[in-house]
Amino acid sequence: MAVDDAGLRAAARGKRPPQGDPVVDRALALLAAFDPAHRRLSLSELSRRSGTPLSTTRRLAERLLAWGALERSAAGGYVVGVRLWEIASLAPRGLGLREVAMPFMDDLHEATRQHVLLAVREGEEAVLVERRSARAAVPVDYRVGGRLPLQMTAVGRVLLAHAPVELQERILAGQGGGASADPVPQPAVLRRTLAEVRRSGVAIINRRNPAPVVSVAAPVRDAADRVVAALSVVLPAGGANPRTIEPAVRAAARAVSRGLGAPGAAVKAGDARG
Amino acid sequence: MAVDDAGLRAAARGKRPPQGDPVVDRALALLAAFDPAHRRLSLSELSRRSGTPLSTTRRLAERLLAWGALERSAAGGYVVGVRLWEIASLAPRGLGLREVAMPFMDDLHEATRQHVLLAVREGEEAVLVERRSARAAVPVDYRVGGRLPLQMTAVGRVLLAHAPVELQERILAGQGGGASADPVPQPAVLRRTLAEVRRSGVAIINRRNPAPVVSVAAPVRDAADRVVAALSVVLPAGGANPRTIEPAVRAAARAVSRGLGAPGAAVKAGDARG
Repeated sequence: MAVDDAGLRAAARGKRPPQGDPVVDRALALLAAFDPAHRRLSLSELSRRSGTPLSTTRRLAERLLAWGALERSAAGGYVVGVRLWEIASLAPRGLGLREVAMPFMDDLHEATRQHVLLAVREGEEAVLVERRSARAAVPVDYRVGGRLPLQMTAVGRVLLAHAPVELQERILAGQGGGASADPVPQPAVLRRTLAEVRRSGVAIINRRNPAPVVSVAAPVRDAADRVVAALSVVLPAGGANPRTIEPAVRAAARAVSRGLGAPGAAVKAGDARG
Repeated sequence: MAVDDAGLRAAARGKRPPQGDPVVDRALALLAAFDPAHRRLSLSELSRRSGTPLSTTRRLAERLLAWGALERSAAGGYVVGVRLWEIASLAPRGLGLREVAMPFMDDLHEATRQHVLLAVREGEEAVLVERRSARAAVPVDYRVGGRLPLQMTAVGRVLLAHAPVELQERILAGQGGGASADPVPQPAVLRRTLAEVRRSGVAIINRRNPAPVVSVAAPVRDAADRVVAALSVVLPAGGANPRTIEPAVRAAARAVSRGLGAPGAAVKAGDARG
């Protein structure tokens, strides 16, 4: 790996101690070699996908195994370990958020019997933190821990509408729309849509793929009044009018925000809106 | 940290390349400094709790921040990052198992309206992978991602009953029972109980703390027919007879096992038990 060796030499020339950082980065690259389509990797796959020499991969994998970040699979190869999941469950934007949100997601789920999604922004995409789905619900290909495009989902548009302006502009300029099979709106149209999402406090989106659905999403705010997550209901298109679902989604998002200590969602004395 | 420096020198003398391993271990120690009671840590707390010098902590934390394994908290300090949770969600014994189990846990939840737990063994404890709880359910202090003692919970006893014999003996010899406020049974009694759990395929346990509950757990098996998880229902004591819940718990555990490809849970042609 010529590039990595060059990196090592550069680090050695630099002011920061050369030892340490590249090794940590390589260990993290080993973890990042796993994705939903690659949940079990052989040593050589781990090496190839992370761009790490085989001998280094073997040595680092041993450390990750010993700690529990990786486990050996009964079917051969390595998988992500429960110990890593245990630590990761402490992520405030992961299970911490989920803990607060779950009862209200259950309420929405019982009321709608379709899909209820909770997502946070991670870089230029959304990560699905929780999903409550009825077995008879319209098919969607969302997975807890999986990623969603910001432009083409209702939760994504809520998160994008409240993201830093530079990120919005970068995404509007790029406009790939990810692997979306639906037509991606023009930047000017999407820019207006985001302004409308901020104004109205709700995002509504119709998609045709993989099945015709309509999604309604609302923002979840934290104690500093920042939008930290988005909550949505996904319904089959042509069923309920999304406008009839909107109040329930708004109310649930507000309840989660209150659970996070959001100032705007606090129950005021004599405030019947609760 | 004299010990660590000695370790570094020992590694330098050894055959294996000295660079790398201690640094990875230290980075992992930084992650392990987080626990349910310490979800947000300052740099100095991170240093102290991980036993890492402050300058090393700062350097490693920078790498973990850059990758997303850690995030800066709005309230100051560091928290576990969503990026780590995203990778960890690929753990087959974590969310992978949960994905298969969730619909059947929902069924059990709808039928019992109390707590439904799914746990795996990690070393000498159980880790709670999922929990479905009614808001009106009897109070328990179980948290998803949290640990449970193997001896004093129904899911724990199922996992312990199917753990390697050496581990069983170590736990019987130790017999701390963790932080349990309930009396821990004598080793000979617990040994007989574990044999009964293996024979009957179900564990039933009564606890008084933090509230009087009765739990019924059954094993979940994988494609290699090994017990990889345990599923349970926790009910208020004095309510339903646990024997009436047992068939539902068994059936749900069998359904999850079938989802994992367990040979004994396969639907046979003409097998009405399905």
